Amino acid sequence: MSSPDAPRIIVNGRECASVDVTDRGFSLGDGLFETIAIRNGAPRFWQAHAERLVDGCRRLAIPVPSIDELAHELECVRDGSESGTARITVSRGPGPRGYAPPPEPLPTRVVGFYPATTPSNPAQRFSLRWCETRLALQPALAGLKHLNRLEQVLARSEWSDPAIDEGIMLATDGRVVECVMSNLFLVVDHTLVTPALDECGVSGVMRRQVLEAATCLGIHTEVRRVEPPEVERASAVFVTSALRGIVAVERIGDLQYSSHDPVVQDLIDRLETLDG
Amino acid sequence: MSSPDAPRIIVNGRECASVDVTDRGFSLGDGLFETIAIRNGAPRFWQAHAERLVDGCRRLAIPVPSIDELAHELECVRDGSESGTARITVSRGPGPRGYAPPPEPLPTRVVGFYPATTPSNPAQRFSLRWCETRLALQPALAGLKHLNRLEQVLARSEWSDPAIDEGIMLATDGRVVECVMSNLFLVVDHTLVTPALDECGVSGVMRRQVLEAATCLGIHTEVRRVEPPEVERASAVFVTSALRGIVAVERIGDLQYSSHDPVVQDLIDRLETLDG
Repeated sequence: MSSPDAPRIIVNGRECASVDVTDRGFSLGDGLFETIAIRNGAPRFWQAHAERLVDGCRRLAIPVPSIDELAHELECVRDGSESGTARITVSRGPGPRGYAPPPEPLPTRVVGFYPATTPSNPAQRFSLRWCETRLALQPALAGLKHLNRLEQVLARSEWSDPAIDEGIMLATDGRVVECVMSNLFLVVDHTLVTPALDECGVSGVMRRQVLEAATCLGIHTEVRRVEPPEVERASAVFVTSALRGIVAVERIGDLQYSSHDPVVQDLIDRLETLDG
Repeated sequence: MSSPDAPRIIVNGRECASVDVTDRGFSLGDGLFETIAIRNGAPRFWQAHAERLVDGCRRLAIPVPSIDELAHELECVRDGSESGTARITVSRGPGPRGYAPPPEPLPTRVVGFYPATTPSNPAQRFSLRWCETRLALQPALAGLKHLNRLEQVLARSEWSDPAIDEGIMLATDGRVVECVMSNLFLVVDHTLVTPALDECGVSGVMRRQVLEAATCLGIHTEVRRVEPPEVERASAVFVTSALRGIVAVERIGDLQYSSHDPVVQDLIDRLETLDG
């Protein structure tokens, strides 16, 4: 059963391959998750992941799990592996039928470790496409990495060409928001620009690191509404995710971007110096 | 373990209390469900529920389960009970980490039967409130009874007063869409009005029955955009759901509605004659 690439998963602290069928994560998407890079035997940017998870639980009124317990469970599933991917899912737990949350929910914790299968290539640059599927504007859920991910499922279903690495998603009103699996940054007139995520989108942990690094480096930064033409006239574009860090964009559709941008390189170098 | 009120649930045809932790229903809300009234020993409006489920699977590109098999599984969990509630959940099934659907998904079927605990009272009239939580406009998912239900969870969390039966939800642009657990109808100038659901909302099976019944009865009907003031000046308001059928609204906040409306009574009488 257990191949070296098989994930190791524990549910509520016990090795387990299943969750209760009445779990509200399954029946309603009532929960949150974190996807975390394991590097040099440790979860990268653990503090930032933990903070986002706690913030998400508070916004959804899910009892906040013990971060120490989650860290311990992550150590258990990592089981000495130096690199790979972890996913932590926290749902509101089992409940009777219906939307009303149980008065005293018993959240479900799922902690999984996925051994690295494709070592990331720091020199790789991404090819992007524009997705047809759009993101709904929903301030009540904006920023959260919650379990309601049908928009991303539909968007990721739009292409199977392995030459395409990511897809840019617009909101229903046409603004640029993010990519399916990562956040989006532009360099426009030497200014770092990334879409505001107060009405939709996932507030990525790596996005936060990049914004903090830009401040340290004295790079002028704007977090604001972005329209598609601005992406096309940017001097450089890159995407960020917890698993990949910063990845420069080589092309979006037929549009090519220059292979080197000093702002992007400074940010990549800066992030590499961070312990995470 | 097994009390008379405990649900009976089978997963993929087998008595089971759990789903695979890698099920995309749990990890991404990647699936659909139906809530079905069991009356006189049979699922009410089964054909309409089956059609909506099939339509939803097609829209999400989830392989369509066998309706005969689901009907058989429903018979198994019903186990001779005359009345109660059934819930059928169909997810895209287990998959590796990530949004991309598996090329050949093996959908998960969950069929559960919940014995009736509170016999419905046909004379009951509902008290409604206006919810703060709004529905995002997302045409790609509009109408579907999918597993991404955080908006309803947040809306239903807004009240715990048992005197409030339902909450009206507006869309983010302020239009009236539906209630948290049911669809909404108004009688305005002898015309039956219900919000269009092409940008958000769940296209209820009972809503469809009511629209069809109205056509048969020669009631003038409009399915269109509705703004809150129109709800307040309606001569009658009612909600519909698969479990409750038509329920007249007695009050919304401080606003009272008349206890009897001939259009509503005609529709209630007509639906009672349908076999379902």
